[in-house]
Amino acid sequence: MRTTVGIIGAGPAGLLLARLLHNAGIDSVVLESRDRDYVERRQRAGILEQGTADVLRAAGAGQRMDREGLRHDGIELRFDRRRHRVDFPALTGGRSVMVYAQTEVCKDLIALQLAEGGPLLFEAEALAVEDAGTDTPRVRFRHEGREDVLECAYVVGCDGFWGVARKAIPAELVQVFERTYPFGWLGILADVPPSHDELVYARHDRGFALLSMRSPAVSRLYLQVPDGTDAEAWSDEEIWDELERRFETADDWRLERGPITQKSVTPMRSYVHEPMRHGRLFLAGDAAHIVPPTGAKGLNLAVGDVVTFARALTHQRDTGSPELLDAYSQTCLRRVWQAERFSYDMTTLLHRTPDASPFDDRLQLARLERIASSRAAETDLAEGYTGFPFG
Amino acid sequence: MRTTVGIIGAGPAGLLLARLLHNAGIDSVVLESRDRDYVERRQRAGILEQGTADVLRAAGAGQRMDREGLRHDGIELRFDRRRHRVDFPALTGGRSVMVYAQTEVCKDLIALQLAEGGPLLFEAEALAVEDAGTDTPRVRFRHEGREDVLECAYVVGCDGFWGVARKAIPAELVQVFERTYPFGWLGILADVPPSHDELVYARHDRGFALLSMRSPAVSRLYLQVPDGTDAEAWSDEEIWDELERRFETADDWRLERGPITQKSVTPMRSYVHEPMRHGRLFLAGDAAHIVPPTGAKGLNLAVGDVVTFARALTHQRDTGSPELLDAYSQTCLRRVWQAERFSYDMTTLLHRTPDASPFDDRLQLARLERIASSRAAETDLAEGYTGFPFG
Repeated sequence: MRTTVGIIGAGPAGLLLARLLHNAGIDSVVLESRDRDYVERRQRAGILEQGTADVLRAAGAGQRMDREGLRHDGIELRFDRRRHRVDFPALTGGRSVMVYAQTEVCKDLIALQLAEGGPLLFEAEALAVEDAGTDTPRVRFRHEGREDVLECAYVVGCDGFWGVARKAIPAELVQVFERTYPFGWLGILADVPPSHDELVYARHDRGFALLSMRSPAVSRLYLQVPDGTDAEAWSDEEIWDELERRFETADDWRLERGPITQKSVTPMRSYVHEPMRHGRLFLAGDAAHIVPPTGAKGLNLAVGDVVTFARALTHQRDTGSPELLDAYSQTCLRRVWQAERFSYDMTTLLHRTPDASPFDDRLQLARLERIASSRAAETDLAEGYTGFPFG
Repeated sequence: MRTTVGIIGAGPAGLLLARLLHNAGIDSVVLESRDRDYVERRQRAGILEQGTADVLRAAGAGQRMDREGLRHDGIELRFDRRRHRVDFPALTGGRSVMVYAQTEVCKDLIALQLAEGGPLLFEAEALAVEDAGTDTPRVRFRHEGREDVLECAYVVGCDGFWGVARKAIPAELVQVFERTYPFGWLGILADVPPSHDELVYARHDRGFALLSMRSPAVSRLYLQVPDGTDAEAWSDEEIWDELERRFETADDWRLERGPITQKSVTPMRSYVHEPMRHGRLFLAGDAAHIVPPTGAKGLNLAVGDVVTFARALTHQRDTGSPELLDAYSQTCLRRVWQAERFSYDMTTLLHRTPDASPFDDRLQLARLERIASSRAAETDLAEGYTGFPFG
């Protein structure tokens, strides 16, 4: 099997890249180890930056998003029983975000790819990337019970944190930057209209909580829990009780309860793999970097990476110059590190760590107070949340 | 001995308070444990916020400052051999800072107090504040070999971190917030014109360095050193060599050397004592809070405290209402915590800690990069540096 761009992974990064290349007239093959159903149900992010939504629209994948997605013009910060709204368009010259689940983005891109694009192979497990340092990299993979080889001009690893693509970069060229956090998120889906029409980020002495939504009828809520927590150890009632405590306000705001349809715990990690390119192998999305979910940056970073790659490859085809491909790692990493910083800051702003001193607590409140009282500090946050520019 | 306001300490807080009260027609007595010469030579801060300079002018203590002080419209951040200037007036609507040493502020205020003000007793060591919770607080002190008592309507402790005033607040009412840092500053005074006309804050892999000045002919420079460093362990040449390394740039900027006339090591600490008031005892300046010097906030916080006290006492005299005096602690602490936050952020932005991970290093560079590329982030810094509003 042979193609110009071998894409490993049919998450949002791999699927969008296939679409962008298709639109540019460049052929690709996507290999995905899971089945279609799994990919379309995997709960992940739900916030699309302005730039991400624009890219999906320009790629012809924005119709359902524009119909069913929820445009959000702000978030609420909640601390000390106070409520402070951050108004994105007013602070950023008109920018906003879109609430539209990653599962839906994947469904839309899969439907488009199967209808119009190149091969998209489910249950095709990449085993290794070979000859990444040469002009003829290859992906060895297993599909329908037998091993095969995909010969490529370029390979893009969109295969996530646990994927194989990264391993093809010689260890002596790699530097890894990492931070773990002593807590995770217990996330639930509940069949109840969201209790607030925008996301609510709550800093509470008992820990962080986040109110989010998947649709006007489905709430998505999170609780900070200690690292290693078993989701099943929390009864539904305990979850609602704890959410209620952490979202407390001085006014008469109320949290509505409903049937919980899904429960899971997400660990928190910051991770960057440098470089993001080796020869003709390029890493995109979680394969190269992880952010804690507090800043809603993971999916949006992946989109930035594949936009940068598609643009660079098109530039090379059109001009013969490899300059943008050569700059891929550097271009992506500039944005990646800003998102890492933002995600780290949002995380430490709002979560309580077991070893936090009283000084640390006051510092956190002083930061929130600053955001609530300084247009400059608030703008800094709003710019970060609505998204850093693509490379 | 009897007065309306007993002031412990003739640092800038105590001296300015005596002046503000004198101007408002309220009598005071200042007790200072050291002699005049010591107070006038004690090297401390050198940056006056816009608001601090305005207060000194309004108090009639600004003539020499305006003649000999250096107005600074920005600072330079140096990292990765790059130079980024932060333009204060452009970012804050015209605000700037004044470089004028604390020693000079003290000299000006002492001269004024001795010429026009109430008693200012040097070598008068406060031993204890008594009856702080009653309407007749007293300061016991030792002067010219014998013990005496100063009977007051109010006592203001401006006696610094090691002073006695704070001890008169019952321990069960007190909460202390504290953070220490595993490094200090080796500071030098040198008889050489400053190598740059504004302050230079350098983040370097070898540690932080700061270029500052006392006058057009005298440089003040600092090096981050490990906690517990002995200043005498560094030869003059070693100091200059190290400064040169940390201030390195990609252009042809050069550090000029000259004779070092003074060398000392300052430890770094964040500290807040709550409340700042108990009955008729009020704490101001370092007696209630310490910041690491990176944000140049210590002296300016002290000025905010005594301005708040003088205003509150005048309000009570004029209206009979104790509301501002009652709110003293809360009013001051709002500003104190913003300065604590700012000082902490400036410190962690620029210093290297022994246990910093590669992730932490990149985060630091991403923060500096953000300040250099986002007007919002840069404005946030400029607002903090030029000063938070008085209560």
